[in-house]
Amino acid sequence: MSVIVAIDIGGTQLRVAVYPRNGTTPITIQHTASRGMEDGVFERLTALIDTIWPKGPVDAISVGAPGPINPYTGTIISTPNIPAWTHYPLAELLSKQYQVPAYLGNDANLAALGEWNYGAGQGHHDVVYLTISTGIGGGVISSDMLIEGCCGMATELGHVIVLPGGPVCSCGVPGHLEAIASGPAIARYVNEQIADGRVSILRSRTELSARDVAEAAKQGDELAKEAFVRAGGFIGQAVAEFLHIFNPSIVIFGGGVSQSGRLILDPIEESMKRNIMDKSYLEGLQITTAKLGDVAGLLGALAQAHIRLSKAG
Amino acid sequence: MSVIVAIDIGGTQLRVAVYPRNGTTPITIQHTASRGMEDGVFERLTALIDTIWPKGPVDAISVGAPGPINPYTGTIISTPNIPAWTHYPLAELLSKQYQVPAYLGNDANLAALGEWNYGAGQGHHDVVYLTISTGIGGGVISSDMLIEGCCGMATELGHVIVLPGGPVCSCGVPGHLEAIASGPAIARYVNEQIADGRVSILRSRTELSARDVAEAAKQGDELAKEAFVRAGGFIGQAVAEFLHIFNPSIVIFGGGVSQSGRLILDPIEESMKRNIMDKSYLEGLQITTAKLGDVAGLLGALAQAHIRLSKAG
Repeated sequence: MSVIVAIDIGGTQLRVAVYPRNGTTPITIQHTASRGMEDGVFERLTALIDTIWPKGPVDAISVGAPGPINPYTGTIISTPNIPAWTHYPLAELLSKQYQVPAYLGNDANLAALGEWNYGAGQGHHDVVYLTISTGIGGGVISSDMLIEGCCGMATELGHVIVLPGGPVCSCGVPGHLEAIASGPAIARYVNEQIADGRVSILRSRTELSARDVAEAAKQGDELAKEAFVRAGGFIGQAVAEFLHIFNPSIVIFGGGVSQSGRLILDPIEESMKRNIMDKSYLEGLQITTAKLGDVAGLLGALAQAHIRLSKAG
Repeated sequence: MSVIVAIDIGGTQLRVAVYPRNGTTPITIQHTASRGMEDGVFERLTALIDTIWPKGPVDAISVGAPGPINPYTGTIISTPNIPAWTHYPLAELLSKQYQVPAYLGNDANLAALGEWNYGAGQGHHDVVYLTISTGIGGGVISSDMLIEGCCGMATELGHVIVLPGGPVCSCGVPGHLEAIASGPAIARYVNEQIADGRVSILRSRTELSARDVAEAAKQGDELAKEAFVRAGGFIGQAVAEFLHIFNPSIVIFGGGVSQSGRLILDPIEESMKRNIMDKSYLEGLQITTAKLGDVAGLLGALAQAHIRLSKAG
């Protein structure tokens, strides 16, 4: 039986798994912490791959990593926490080492592919996937095709301006969705409001997380609830534009912040309705949360391998 | 020799042309004013088609019309100035009348297809086309595929918010690009500023057009120049986002306002640079104006016929 080796290079975990060519249940799966990967990252990665490398034939290695990356050349342009991997030909190096084809994709794009093939987006042809977490990322399938652009840098959906002159994004541009509605942005808003004298059961502190804010909101804290209404309002404004731009039949929300459920989804949907140019964009539109949890990256890498292998003929 | 009949239903002109299957020079071309099309529009259209209908075989009829339209069903949802064409199965009716396949596409999408196949976008695989005219519309080709979405309503690029709470768009949402940077929006800004006491060689009047403003700007009028800098700034802000979303290798500006040349293109490019998240989006990016002029619609319809016929096998 031939297999596919999937790799997910995440912010906290480095995961590798072996999947049967015709299945989605991993034969083996391994992970290690991805912190402290300043040195010898490639050697650590291959050591981990070696532990799961099967005896039989491997059709491909397929890797997902936070971008920017170039999926056409398999090169990592740069990736958070691994400074050594700058303009780094990861796919080529893996292909050489293991003598099989190796593919590289952007993590948010692969999560979108995973949800489309095996999760919440099954059966749809036009999918907008938005992950709201430490950052905000996106992946889009249009007429059964992943949108990648000329150089693999498309669908950076967190980097649209929702509040001109607003908070400066990690990318340097003011007012981006990511700077206003990501998990850290939600926590920062609460901290700022408390510093300004707002009453809350939360205490202002640097380690405050969106999860803490969600907990407080569930206990009825007004400031915490407002923080989600505010973030959801901006997310809904951006999603309305993504509907005008991509006209999908489903919008899938992934990432930790989406797990706050109605707390964030209600204000998102309310804002989408307010900002949509024509209600026909909402007719029949499914709005849902991601289904695959923390294996979205691995399953996305698996989906990527199938797509690339079928293109290679 | 087999031919394709192309039809462009425009705001001022209704054009029909016969193209050879393997060429872009029309064998015959006819047009009539499209004003006053309240009644008997289909009969007027078929009368015009009859005047150019060839004796030999016709492979397809291909129509472009302002949307919203559904390209999959060939139905006009609604189109400006023709109230009778609401949920109107135009492609089906034409196909029945002439006994050939008939296709329908959104005018901005077809202009994008035309420029990609026969104009400024030739040789590119990822194209963003933006038309700045009475309204602002868009068309996008990604990896050699026109982006249409699940229901043909994608790439409404004029309907993105660039100024939350700003002027209300024709669609009802405040702050859309179209409401701030279209030709009429540029003229309205100048009128408002003159009413507020600003000095200009222009006189405030309802018939003031963006073309008048461009003329004044070329004569050195400060207010007129500022109006283009302002509009271009907002267009550049939106285009930077389209680069983050589509990562094209070329951006093509069509429509009357684009013909103002550097007057509008300089502020657009300056704003794009200011609003881009990473300069790699601009590396190798071509920025240009449309080449096909007022036959973009017909040539887009021709390109659409070729794509649809090749899909039909």
